[in-house]
Amino acid sequence: MATFRLALIQLHVSSIKSDNVSRACSLVREAAKQGAKVVSLPECFNSPYGTNYFPEYAEKIPGESTQKLAEAAKENSIYLIGGSIPEEDAGKLYNTCAVFGPDGSLLVKHRKIHLFDIDVPGKITFQESKTLSPGDSLSTFDTRTYHISLPLTVVIPEKSRRLTSHVCIFCLETAYCRVGLGICYDMRFAELAQIYAQRGCQLLVYPGAFNLTTGPAHWELLQRARAVDNQVYVATASPARDDKASYVAWGHSTVVDPWGQVLTKAGTEEMILYSDIDLKRLAEVRQQIPISKQKRADLYAGTIKENLYASLPGAVTPFPTKATRNDSEVLAVTGQFPTGGRTPHPHNG
Amino acid sequence: MATFRLALIQLHVSSIKSDNVSRACSLVREAAKQGAKVVSLPECFNSPYGTNYFPEYAEKIPGESTQKLAEAAKENSIYLIGGSIPEEDAGKLYNTCAVFGPDGSLLVKHRKIHLFDIDVPGKITFQESKTLSPGDSLSTFDTRTYHISLPLTVVIPEKSRRLTSHVCIFCLETAYCRVGLGICYDMRFAELAQIYAQRGCQLLVYPGAFNLTTGPAHWELLQRARAVDNQVYVATASPARDDKASYVAWGHSTVVDPWGQVLTKAGTEEMILYSDIDLKRLAEVRQQIPISKQKRADLYAGTIKENLYASLPGAVTPFPTKATRNDSEVLAVTGQFPTGGRTPHPHNG
Repeated sequence: MATFRLALIQLHVSSIKSDNVSRACSLVREAAKQGAKVVSLPECFNSPYGTNYFPEYAEKIPGESTQKLAEAAKENSIYLIGGSIPEEDAGKLYNTCAVFGPDGSLLVKHRKIHLFDIDVPGKITFQESKTLSPGDSLSTFDTRTYHISLPLTVVIPEKSRRLTSHVCIFCLETAYCRVGLGICYDMRFAELAQIYAQRGCQLLVYPGAFNLTTGPAHWELLQRARAVDNQVYVATASPARDDKASYVAWGHSTVVDPWGQVLTKAGTEEMILYSDIDLKRLAEVRQQIPISKQKRADLYAGTIKENLYASLPGAVTPFPTKATRNDSEVLAVTGQFPTGGRTPHPHNG
Repeated sequence: MATFRLALIQLHVSSIKSDNVSRACSLVREAAKQGAKVVSLPECFNSPYGTNYFPEYAEKIPGESTQKLAEAAKENSIYLIGGSIPEEDAGKLYNTCAVFGPDGSLLVKHRKIHLFDIDVPGKITFQESKTLSPGDSLSTFDTRTYHISLPLTVVIPEKSRRLTSHVCIFCLETAYCRVGLGICYDMRFAELAQIYAQRGCQLLVYPGAFNLTTGPAHWELLQRARAVDNQVYVATASPARDDKASYVAWGHSTVVDPWGQVLTKAGTEEMILYSDIDLKRLAEVRQQIPISKQKRADLYAGTIKENLYASLPGAVTPFPTKATRNDSEVLAVTGQFPTGGRTPHPHNG
């Protein structure tokens, strides 16, 4: 299987945190019902976006908002990219994306590396660094076939005997894919995407809230640039546009394919955007225009500091499967498989 | 002065080399008349584009075609980026861009670094490496106020005495600008543009011949990506489209500004495209969204191999001015200045 469904939640973010979180979880549930296996929320999904709001809305991770995300990931058996929230840790504030696996475990935490400090006179001036600190590491995670084991009674009809064994009762058949994470302004830094691609990422996800100046100018361009230069899928999840907010987000969550083509693009209102991520298509593009093999390593060097390799969680500690099982051990099982009766195909690597 | 006029010659390339060269030079003359100070020809301007043509049309540099370019640069007092020609050197063939200064001197020679080897089934298959070898260095050159000195008689009216001195009789008041060069497929490699920007380039020029598959998909996208990611001007010069050619070029020579906006774009026919390169605008963009200062040097390293710094001609051996003179030495000069009688402003750095 080379395809999985991605959903981007273009959430309307209000000033009431609990409402934001509960509506986010409700839309995650809806996305999972529609077959999404990887779901992303937008940047700053539980809080209005603004330096004055960050201290008030900030939480520890784990904390109240991310606990709800962990539950939503588990209940719906999906990978949940938690957009971002203002995070408080050791007296500092960060703009942080927490990612949860289908069992509800925290897979990785990405703190926005490049803070949004810009000044376009008469258009947009913003200085995240007034209240936030930047993150110091790059973040990836891996999706793959995912198993949860439970003891079940197995019936082998011919011999009419029963045995109890640990078997896979749940298989999330997400195609294997390494995902690279950035938050909003991180997308302007081509180096980050290049490193992720070098490290095997096939999908880059940027929860982000561009505005009415940078949105029309650069939102789609930057996504298509990252996609075509690295031959990866690129997805962005924006908050819905709220013209009454102090910071008006651009909206237009988007998915771009490795050929640089926009696959789908939201409007400005609250909605769920779906796209099937086809890793076979990605492989085709890379074969047709083999730029990664054609790079001149003799002329330009790698782009990541050596000591940072170890801090790439996706690369160094691949997401563990929960059960290992051999198909031949089980002939028939009394439980129901969510895969529709088809023999589940366990997979560990 | 922060602005100079750039012209891109979208030449119709035929199979008759001498015609191609003479028409190119005639269009260069026209561009200079219209005030262009930097002019670029398209990729493979003296030969049809195709691996079978390269051996037949290849020349030494200097050679018959580039000699004409040197003369055209000098006659019109411009910087001439000679698109590219098939070059023969020591038994090997290259796709090479020669650049000439306003005095006709050869400033730099860029050999295409990344050969165009792609295979998009049913659309376009091409393998430059069948006959060409790749270049091994990066290439920049600098434009600046440019002086040619000649001995002239200087009259100082009050004292009614004459003196003979070397004075500047020609000033090309091109704004100072470092230019980075790539040829066509080189544009797909973001690293090259990143290095050029790191080394102070404000304009990247890519003579290039995309085709009817990669043209609509990527030609404009790649230019806008290079421009917005590095906050530089990007210009491409394509041959005009010839539907009867074995390789049909996309046309649509383009200039993109440092905000990622298309300033001007040609159609498909033979024409000269003009654009004023405004370095003040570039400085504004870099101040508004200061990504070059915001890059995380602690997280990702430089992108050029140390030993290649020395091979950047523009960086290491800045283009020398021809005369050094102090304004105060000359009160009045009997010669005419092409700047319209205004006191020339010598400039060495």
